[in-house]
Order: sequence, then structure tokens, then C-alpha cells
Amino acid sequence: MIEHPYLLFLGDAPDMLAAKVAIGIRDWRPDYALGQIRLPGCGADLGLKDLTLAEAKSLGAKTLVIGVANRGGVISPAWKEVLIEALEMGYDLASGLHNLLRDEGDLMAAAQTHGGTLHDVRVPSVGYPIANGKKRTGKRCLAVGTDCSVGKMYTAMAMERDMVARGMKATFRATGQTGILITGHGVPLDAVIADFMAGSIEYLTPDNDPDHWDLIEGQGSLFHVSYSGVTMALIHGGQPDALILCHEPTREHMRGLPEYTPPSLQALRDTALPLAQISNPACQVVGVSVNTQHLSDEDAKAYLAQVEAEMGLPATDPYRYGSDKLVDALAAI
Amino acid sequence: MIEHPYLLFLGDAPDMLAAKVAIGIRDWRPDYALGQIRLPGCGADLGLKDLTLAEAKSLGAKTLVIGVANRGGVISPAWKEVLIEALEMGYDLASGLHNLLRDEGDLMAAAQTHGGTLHDVRVPSVGYPIANGKKRTGKRCLAVGTDCSVGKMYTAMAMERDMVARGMKATFRATGQTGILITGHGVPLDAVIADFMAGSIEYLTPDNDPDHWDLIEGQGSLFHVSYSGVTMALIHGGQPDALILCHEPTREHMRGLPEYTPPSLQALRDTALPLAQISNPACQVVGVSVNTQHLSDEDAKAYLAQVEAEMGLPATDPYRYGSDKLVDALAAI
Repeated sequence: MIEHPYLLFLGDAPDMLAAKVAIGIRDWRPDYALGQIRLPGCGADLGLKDLTLAEAKSLGAKTLVIGVANRGGVISPAWKEVLIEALEMGYDLASGLHNLLRDEGDLMAAAQTHGGTLHDVRVPSVGYPIANGKKRTGKRCLAVGTDCSVGKMYTAMAMERDMVARGMKATFRATGQTGILITGHGVPLDAVIADFMAGSIEYLTPDNDPDHWDLIEGQGSLFHVSYSGVTMALIHGGQPDALILCHEPTREHMRGLPEYTPPSLQALRDTALPLAQISNPACQVVGVSVNTQHLSDEDAKAYLAQVEAEMGLPATDPYRYGSDKLVDALAAI
Repeated sequence: MIEHPYLLFLGDAPDMLAAKVAIGIRDWRPDYALGQIRLPGCGADLGLKDLTLAEAKSLGAKTLVIGVANRGGVISPAWKEVLIEALEMGYDLASGLHNLLRDEGDLMAAAQTHGGTLHDVRVPSVGYPIANGKKRTGKRCLAVGTDCSVGKMYTAMAMERDMVARGMKATFRATGQTGILITGHGVPLDAVIADFMAGSIEYLTPDNDPDHWDLIEGQGSLFHVSYSGVTMALIHGGQPDALILCHEPTREHMRGLPEYTPPSLQALRDTALPLAQISNPACQVVGVSVNTQHLSDEDAKAYLAQVEAEMGLPATDPYRYGSDKLVDALAAI
């Protein structure tokens, strides 16, 4: 559990693309984001207050979050001065970089001297159990995609926000480092040892109130041969009551796999649902989330209408048109 | 790659059940097994020559293989004297125990002093790539099961033996620690990091002669919610041309999961084949391997005949009746 509120470290990020993690925190947990801290030459700006370490500390900041991904995922020497000063002032540090904080001797030494915690969310910090498959109380919704990077995290985040706004009990459950940094907890599923994948998802989504929904962040795709095993473990460990199908209709091949064509939404439904029903026979597909960023408003609406007609399911782009249709579908279960 | 021939260390194994690994080596790689070495009180006997370390060394032994699994998977103090003496005499050590050889300071010190290698086959020793899904030359056969522990390793081992005897090009590809110790190489798939599972299987089964068959050891089951992600990665990383369905007909529930009923062979076929065709559209189900150990000869034969009629596929118990029917099916592809 990463303590908030956060000060968001943007370092010398060349542009906003490099600040994806910080943008996610600003958008989805605005109350966690006290402000930003930038080095000379930083080309990213979240529109938050620029604060010094001392200013943010006096406002109650607990953790300096590295909100930027740089080339190679390394911790730049230019960052070190700020990171060490933060530890000296009593901050914890949190990072999703490949280059672990704990592998840097000077950061480790400063953390030990000053009692700070180094959160490397790319690697598990828990010894997860092997999944036992026992039915858990509460309800779970999982986003599954025709491909990687089609909007599964965004869909679950938007549904959580809209469900909480309606007074429903809902918790986003992060399974990747961006989601973990945004919400402060979760399972870095892609870094879990094979035997414990499904168990880590059981651990992440324990027994809960009967009317509580876990919105589990999806990973990979059953149709993406590099990562399908991770998706499979999410489906069986999550034992979802509801699946949301996620799709990006203009993609010409599977991400990173030029020889592979993305499946249809029908193929995704027909593959994912029977597998989900192994762990939860009551599971149903409740809606479709389409990433329409490459379509005009007119084309997007026409595409969504076509999907609704063909699939007999509510369909929306939650970023563009809100997640209400999907939340309505969950509320009806 | 573990160097052979081996001397098989049985330690103080109370009975033959504890010597499963050593039995596998004796049965499947008899030319690797120079002899056995036992401590006082050992209740296991492979029927091999009892050799001292020095005798086996003079016969050419390269590696002392711990062929026994004891309670808790620990390296007993009673074993240490022999293991250290072996390192001093120039042996390598190989083990599939949870308690790693490399975590024992005295073994590590002796290995470094005498230039021996400690093979802990339970953990990966390779940085595997992320799968790229590219079509590879050569042919691959994967055993998939209705459950865990239904005979997938045995089936692939028996097929390799019978194919080599026919002059076919065939290689068993180990994906678990027993198989790795038997053959001297492989991927300990259950210990691989999630993101690299499918890539580790691509690494294990690279381009080969067009008429060469990799016989890939299966793991878990698509229907076993604890391990289905591992199975999925095998299917997509292995891009099999042929699937063998493995089944144990008397099992009442999935192994370790009392709430879960094993699927039918039809359900396994209908689930596994479309998933396999994502990575290899030409994949086909070619036969059924049934573990009939709990059936009389008459019942086993009747059951196999029934499976053949219902599935329209050759069916055999390779342990009891040989794997010829399955090899015939591969040879016909």
C-alpha cells in the first residue's frame, strides 16, 4: 500500500507521452495529486501546482511518485539528487520503472537511514498463494480485450468512478504498474511467477459485501500469443460474474505481432465466456467497450450502434461517451 | 544442460514413492543412469548397481542427481557429507528440490572451490524472451489434459521412445523439473515469470528439420483454475501442429479442487483446439491418451473402444498398451 497524498515527479520528461503514469494519477485520483515537481528542461506539464519537496511536505505529501517512463526505464543520475533529498525529508518513493529503486545503492542507503519505503511496483512484494478456486462472496467484473492496449484499464477506471458516483460499492483492482501507482495497491501480474498467477488475483479480489463490485483491470488478450497465459489466469483467478469486451476497431494486427489479425468481438465472446464459466458458471458477457479514438464522432456512433445490433449488448466508448451503459448492465445483475 | 552420465542419489528415501525422479531417469534414460548411491536406512532400490562416488567417477559419471523428493523438499544434513564429497571429487550436482542447492553455503563454497556446477532445475537459469509468435519450422505435438497429473509427461516420453525406435526424428521437451532431470535440459515453466511463459516455450522448441517432432510435455489443464494460465502459455508458445488429449477416467474432482468436476474429452477438445489454432491454424487433435491404471484390463479396453467410437480418434493407454496408435497418427500428418 503506497501512502498518499503524492507529489508527482516528472523529472526531465521530454513530453506528455512520457508522463503517462502521472496523467493517470491526476485523472483518476485527483485527490492524491498534491502537485508536480519538474527538473530543468521538463517538457511535460500536468497543469498541477509546481511544488518544491518542502512545500509539498508541508501540505502533507507522503510519497514522491516517479510519474514518468523514460527510455530504457532507467533511473537517471539527474533524478538522484531530488530522490535522495526526498528520502532525507521523510518521503517514501514509488516507481514502476524496470530499473528498481532498491537496486540503487545510494537510494537504498538513504531509505534505510531515514526510514523511508521504496515501492517498486513492477515486482511483487507479496508471496501469493496458489489459487484454490473457492467461490468468494461479492461480485467481480473483468475487462477482456481483442488485443492488448485497447482500453481495458480505462474502462474499469471509468466504471469505478461512475459506480461510486451512483452510490454503488465498487473498487478498481489494479493488475499492472500504472494502475498500482494510481491507486496505491494491486498485483503486478506480468511479474508474478507462473504457478501463482491465478492465486495472486484471488488474493487481490477477496470476499466482499454481496453488493460490492471489484472492477478487475484486464491484461493481455486470449488472442495475443505472447500474453494469453496472463489473461487466462485473470479469468480463472478473478472468477468474474461479468465480462466487458474491449475492442479497438481500426487495429490491423495484434500489438507487436504483425502476423496476427485481431479477432472479432463475437470470437472474443465465444472464447472468453466458456473459459470464465469454468470458474464461475453464472458468468455473463454484459457489454462492449470500444476505443473509438481513431473514428470521427459520426463514425464512432455508427460503429457502436452496429456493435449493439450485432452483439445484442450495450456498447459505448467510456472515454468519449461515458460508461453509464456498462454500469447499467452491472446494476441489472 | 546437465552433463551425463549420472549417479543417482537416493539418500535416505523411505520408499520407492519418494524416488520418483530417479525412477524416471532409470526408465526413460537408462543409458544416463550408471548406478545408485544410498545412505543407511534407504528403503528405495532402483535395481541398479550400488556404486560409491569413486566407483561411479571411474566409470565416467559427471553429475550426482538427487533422485529423491523428501518431505518439505529440504536438503537433509545427512545428505550433505555425500554431496560435498561429490563436489570435491569433481561432480556437478543436480536437484529439483524447493530448497535450492545454491542457497546452501557449504555446497556453494565446495562448488566454487572445485569448479562444480549446481543445477537447481526448479528455477530458470535463462532470461527467456517475450514470445514473438513467428511460425517456426519443424513439427510440434503437445499433450493437454482434462486435469493435472493424468499422464501428460509419460505420454510424451513414450511417444519419443517409440518414434526414435521407428527412425523418426523426435525430441521430448521437458517443461517440469522431473522431465528436466531425466533429459538434462528443459524449461521449469511453473517458475517462469508470467510475461515470459510463452517465450520460454518458443525458446525450448526452436526451428528444426521439417520432419522433426518436438514432443512438448504438458502442464496443468485449461480446466484447472490454479494453473490454466500455464497451460495457455504452452499452447500459444508451443504452436502445436498436433494435440494429444490426456485423461484419467476415474477421477471424481479436479486435483486439489474438490468443487470442480473434470471436463469430458469432448469439452477438452472443443476448448483446446480453437485456442491452439490461434497460433497454428493447421493444428489438429490427433489422438487420446488414457491413464487406465484404476481399470481392469477388460474395462480399460472397453473404455478405449468407447472413446475411439465417440471421439473418432485413436485412443490408447501408452503405459499399458504402447503409444503406437498415437505415433501412427503423428506419422500421418
